[in-house]
Amino acid sequence: MAAEKVYRASTTAPVNIAVVKYWGKRDAKLNLPTNSSLSVTLSQSDLRTLTTASCSASYPASEGDSLLLNGEPSDVSGARTQACFRELRARRAALEAADPSLPKLSTMPLRLVSENNFPTAAGLASSAAGFAALVRAIADLYELPASPSELSLIARQGSGSACRSLFGGYVAWRMGEAADGSDSMADQVAEAKHWPDMRALILVVSAAKKGVSSTSGMQQTVATSGLFQERIAKVVPENMARMEKAIKERDFEAFAEVTMRDSNSFHATCADTYPPIFYMNDVSRAAIRAVETINQAAGRTVAAYTFDAGPNAVIYYLEKDTEAVVGTFFHVLGGAIDGWKDSVIKGLKPTVSLDEGAAGLLKGGVSRVILTGVGEGPVKTEEYLVAEDGSPVRR
Amino acid sequence: MAAEKVYRASTTAPVNIAVVKYWGKRDAKLNLPTNSSLSVTLSQSDLRTLTTASCSASYPASEGDSLLLNGEPSDVSGARTQACFRELRARRAALEAADPSLPKLSTMPLRLVSENNFPTAAGLASSAAGFAALVRAIADLYELPASPSELSLIARQGSGSACRSLFGGYVAWRMGEAADGSDSMADQVAEAKHWPDMRALILVVSAAKKGVSSTSGMQQTVATSGLFQERIAKVVPENMARMEKAIKERDFEAFAEVTMRDSNSFHATCADTYPPIFYMNDVSRAAIRAVETINQAAGRTVAAYTFDAGPNAVIYYLEKDTEAVVGTFFHVLGGAIDGWKDSVIKGLKPTVSLDEGAAGLLKGGVSRVILTGVGEGPVKTEEYLVAEDGSPVRR
Repeated sequence: MAAEKVYRASTTAPVNIAVVKYWGKRDAKLNLPTNSSLSVTLSQSDLRTLTTASCSASYPASEGDSLLLNGEPSDVSGARTQACFRELRARRAALEAADPSLPKLSTMPLRLVSENNFPTAAGLASSAAGFAALVRAIADLYELPASPSELSLIARQGSGSACRSLFGGYVAWRMGEAADGSDSMADQVAEAKHWPDMRALILVVSAAKKGVSSTSGMQQTVATSGLFQERIAKVVPENMARMEKAIKERDFEAFAEVTMRDSNSFHATCADTYPPIFYMNDVSRAAIRAVETINQAAGRTVAAYTFDAGPNAVIYYLEKDTEAVVGTFFHVLGGAIDGWKDSVIKGLKPTVSLDEGAAGLLKGGVSRVILTGVGEGPVKTEEYLVAEDGSPVRR
Repeated sequence: MAAEKVYRASTTAPVNIAVVKYWGKRDAKLNLPTNSSLSVTLSQSDLRTLTTASCSASYPASEGDSLLLNGEPSDVSGARTQACFRELRARRAALEAADPSLPKLSTMPLRLVSENNFPTAAGLASSAAGFAALVRAIADLYELPASPSELSLIARQGSGSACRSLFGGYVAWRMGEAADGSDSMADQVAEAKHWPDMRALILVVSAAKKGVSSTSGMQQTVATSGLFQERIAKVVPENMARMEKAIKERDFEAFAEVTMRDSNSFHATCADTYPPIFYMNDVSRAAIRAVETINQAAGRTVAAYTFDAGPNAVIYYLEKDTEAVVGTFFHVLGGAIDGWKDSVIKGLKPTVSLDEGAAGLLKGGVSRVILTGVGEGPVKTEEYLVAEDGSPVRR
């Protein structure tokens, strides 16, 4: 008999780093947040997940759906992943019911292969890019007419912040009000090209030990922090409004202040959790001091720090201030660690000198850097991680 | 002519460590707080200030009032110290006006000599004990009929937390409502003998650099933290009520939980300040982890951490749990550092082993310990730091 056709679709999806943080679920099963959030999508030339989704009647039903992640078999039986598969299959099944001439892809096992172009060791939240790529790739495979916002509803159920990785540029996740989560989705506040000179320097800080996972951490905060309600009721709504305005007006000073204040507020509610959760360490705090020193020396705000659920510092700045920001950190950290780009650091003079304490902590605690900037959303690609015969591509 | 008489009075006053923290002024001039607070008075055999107040017509008016603190001349021209002198002199002057036979001490220069029995290097807030001793000694010199609560009104104007050091045991500072501060004073929640087996282990942590002073730090928090209002409006009032109940019922589990939660809440508002204020460092956090480990191993809450405006950990525990608490830290820190008491550590077996990370941070970062417990308020003494001829006593 003729070999059954293998259907394939490949997409890349970006990482996003929030400037107004998502922390807290009002519905854990549906991944509905206690507050809206806003992020900057980072360039896929530096940080991206490439995922190929494939399905075929020739795939043994006994194997079921499968995912190969960075060369390792990955469990897809979790409720989050299953929810994404279920939602996408239902939409495909509806198309097939409306047009019987369509192949019954919704009935075939899914074989997914996914790879990140950045070290998992970096401790960067890769689940956002991962679920965004997974959802986008399957949607393309199924040829769903779904908009990015509609797909963000699905990706959200895989990993909350993944819904923001379905867009490029500056992206808001609206918390919504509906109990079924039908209005908790992402939209684009501004395209990357609206404010293209936004840059990010990521200081990868090696944590002594893995901190509390964000999933359980945020639930503990919601349950025990006496200050958390104030954050979601007042602080975040104000920060969302200020941040959208700052982005629309390309006002970096305002962007930076809200970014730093919101990161501080988020980590404050973690410290107010019982027992307390600490994601930042002395190296993280040294990065904060460094940013404050750089801004003081510049006489204006040229850099903004933000921290997710870990010790890594993400420092946003504008391309024109590369010397003041990157030059200072390159001078302190030296060229020995990975991640510097010759095109960026070439000819940078050290403009600011940090106090010895902060410099020593950074030198001892930063294991690598990542230089990137604002970028585009998921991109369909002809690069496949599944061969035409359905076998994973060896690389 | 016969030498003019030198009038003298000596008192000792204790340090207090808050379990519900004072952080924020609603009136900086009068030292009126944004919230009530509650503290444990620590034993003066370990931590105390001894102050002799003296005055004499023979003291040259040109010298004015003076204070010799730990052998060094100390400025008394500050508004805080002047407020205490003014308030005390006014009360003495009223007595003199009512009884012309009384010597006119209110018109004589004050010569004060003060000494702490603990190293200033320990970075323990000594201003509380210092102003409490200063006010109590002058009040005794002037033979004022003032109650400790009335004197707490005066000491509060010198240093807010000093008002709590005028009592022994368990002490509340009621924030009050009057604009003139006439109802912002301390009272005793319970005597030391009501719950005498309360102990404190202080881990003195050497800070990389001096942090923001509490006076300016709390003003920055009031001005910039979006979470602070929630703390003073809801969190602290609840903690005050729970803490008073826990103390009255000698309920250590409740005492410990409120103590740790309130310390977390206080430091969370510091982290939410813009720019953020960090008093704790990685060593402080290791102490928190150690306390959590000790409590888990005991299967109940036997230790409670609290941190003031610095990295030192104060760990409260009950005498019966000395082995679980002190034994664990002694085993980790070793006997090389100062502050262990043979009477306390004799025969203590290590009952809990900490993870290597926390143990390493503590071993590297704790410079000395202080073993103490709940104690009495100011005590009048015949030990004078000013000789009968008015000269400072050399020791």
